Amino acid sequence: MKPHFAKRFQMIQAKMSELDLDFLLVNNRENLIYFTGLTQIECMAILIPRQGQPCAITLWLDAQFVRQQTGLETYGYVFPQDNLADSLVRHIRAGGVEQPRIGFERYFVPFAVYDALRQAFPEQGFVNASPLFYQLRSVKDEQELALMKRAGQIVAAGMAAAVERVAAGVSELEVLAEAEYAMLKAGSGGSPFRPQVVSGTRTLLTHPLASEKLIQAGELVVIHLGAAYSGYCAKLCRTVAVGKVGAGRRAVYELLRQAQAAACQALKPGVSVDEVDRNAREIIREAGWEQHYLDVIGYGVGIRQSEFYPIIGKGRQDCIEAGMVVDLLLPTIYHPDVGGARITDCIYIGQSGNERITPYSQELIQK
Amino acid sequence: MKPHFAKRFQMIQAKMSELDLDFLLVNNRENLIYFTGLTQIECMAILIPRQGQPCAITLWLDAQFVRQQTGLETYGYVFPQDNLADSLVRHIRAGGVEQPRIGFERYFVPFAVYDALRQAFPEQGFVNASPLFYQLRSVKDEQELALMKRAGQIVAAGMAAAVERVAAGVSELEVLAEAEYAMLKAGSGGSPFRPQVVSGTRTLLTHPLASEKLIQAGELVVIHLGAAYSGYCAKLCRTVAVGKVGAGRRAVYELLRQAQAAACQALKPGVSVDEVDRNAREIIREAGWEQHYLDVIGYGVGIRQSEFYPIIGKGRQDCIEAGMVVDLLLPTIYHPDVGGARITDCIYIGQSGNERITPYSQELIQK
Repeated sequence: MKPHFAKRFQMIQAKMSELDLDFLLVNNRENLIYFTGLTQIECMAILIPRQGQPCAITLWLDAQFVRQQTGLETYGYVFPQDNLADSLVRHIRAGGVEQPRIGFERYFVPFAVYDALRQAFPEQGFVNASPLFYQLRSVKDEQELALMKRAGQIVAAGMAAAVERVAAGVSELEVLAEAEYAMLKAGSGGSPFRPQVVSGTRTLLTHPLASEKLIQAGELVVIHLGAAYSGYCAKLCRTVAVGKVGAGRRAVYELLRQAQAAACQALKPGVSVDEVDRNAREIIREAGWEQHYLDVIGYGVGIRQSEFYPIIGKGRQDCIEAGMVVDLLLPTIYHPDVGGARITDCIYIGQSGNERITPYSQELIQK
Repeated sequence: MKPHFAKRFQMIQAKMSELDLDFLLVNNRENLIYFTGLTQIECMAILIPRQGQPCAITLWLDAQFVRQQTGLETYGYVFPQDNLADSLVRHIRAGGVEQPRIGFERYFVPFAVYDALRQAFPEQGFVNASPLFYQLRSVKDEQELALMKRAGQIVAAGMAAAVERVAAGVSELEVLAEAEYAMLKAGSGGSPFRPQVVSGTRTLLTHPLASEKLIQAGELVVIHLGAAYSGYCAKLCRTVAVGKVGAGRRAVYELLRQAQAAACQALKPGVSVDEVDRNAREIIREAGWEQHYLDVIGYGVGIRQSEFYPIIGKGRQDCIEAGMVVDLLLPTIYHPDVGGARITDCIYIGQSGNERITPYSQELIQK
């Protein structure tokens, strides 16, 4: 096993001791990537005991591959005669703990797996271990940072290709096609989320995707892309003005850009996310738009494009640490007259300063 | 509300009566597409009462959009002060049923939503309603079939572009880039699954994805693509021989092609999936490879690239009905000496004959 993976297991086993967990069940794809680096696995789990060696449980066809790649003791289950949930139950039973305390991923464990566990063991021994994973994953090691920087370069290449294609009469999907093509050619292992290329009033939806809508002169086009490299993400959002766009909408872009810069200035090891948010929020408030703004302005970024820790927002208490990577700044001003523009970058928080890992001009782009 | 969506609600309400359900909770993205056609929604649920009008519950920012697009009575919840789970609980309570019988999507409901429900209502009233959705969705109406045929054309365009790029010295990801580009240009709303472009020994992994590996002369390249059009999928898999590939591997492709043809011949309204499987399996058995083959050879296809109903495989009892779309034939021969080749198409089962909706040559492709 490579030393950085061994270290990750050691760190989480230390946390298991603090929480008095006998076993930790790793089933979520993202956590599997964190502990193995394998992005090409499904139907797999890792069972981590409080002490001693973790083991992998996977489809019999993949067992040899997983064993070779990870160095983990690996057990294959033959599907459909056997399945992952039953195999997990047997391995936990074999541990010989009468009423085991089992940490599981509350937000990701499939109900069917949870159900098999609760048939076999007393439910009061089950502990939501999601925060364990997220806090550990929030601070990146050297290997992780290198992968994320590579993802940042890829997503910037995608943005360049997308912007090049934007013009009146071109569909959102055509712009996306250029972005995806450029990112795949640059080595992306795929988009970590459904990328957004949205124009006109569609920029005000919360989760809009690229559509067959044609871009029109006078519209803003928001391009929000993601790339994954060896399982690690970067995301980047920019706004393009096509033809003559009203001063109000242009001003909102500049406002958001200032807010982002203010948030970045506050972003240092030891500060609370509330303080980071406040720096940006004051600028929005002074401009009179706070009631059309959102309460969350950024997330940790890593294997997940929006990690659950830290979450940067109003009144939240998460604390920024050296080694984190976060995105800033997510929301637009949700007002039909002026809203729509957006800007987002990924920022690495170093001991001695921050580094933007999404190298792309921050100007409002005019086409 | 468009008549075909209204009809889908009526059909499921009839099934709710059979199962004595008071409410049906629709939270899974795929089922939301089935009932609304909206592919651009998240953080949303539909609550269907046994009688009367269903309603949508969604993020407040999206409420107006959802209302306009669907014609459903729509309630927005303000996040993070409120959330989807709590909002659902309130709406079920407002129904005034003391111990409601609630159908939910066992395999897809997030644990957090399930947990909020069981805090509020007795768990013995909860019923796994997954089969309801899957059986309903397995038979396509006219609108669905039209979308799937369009997806089939898109995926064929992707295959042509991918095959064009395959050559010794080219990476799997470069081939994928051409496929994705062509599909997005042809109108794909994205890949429903992580597409596979795999070469050499990687063809024997169960869930391999495209990687930076360079294709080499003498290798097979398996290209397995998917496209979604307005939320409906098609998938297509073909095999390319690069340079001189051994007769054994080529023979396996021909064998699988024969097996696929035999399965398709059995594919008629009223037959059991076991019979379809048996037709293919006999050909594999006669060639001596059955123990290196798998037990499942196809799935329903629709909003999900592999639906949970029907599943075509050995000893299974699902019954083929007119209007279904299925894929055939998934597995290769899992033997290192000769295995790796694959072929898959999507087939519509009509009252008066089948139609392959993935229009691409079925020959082993030589480059």
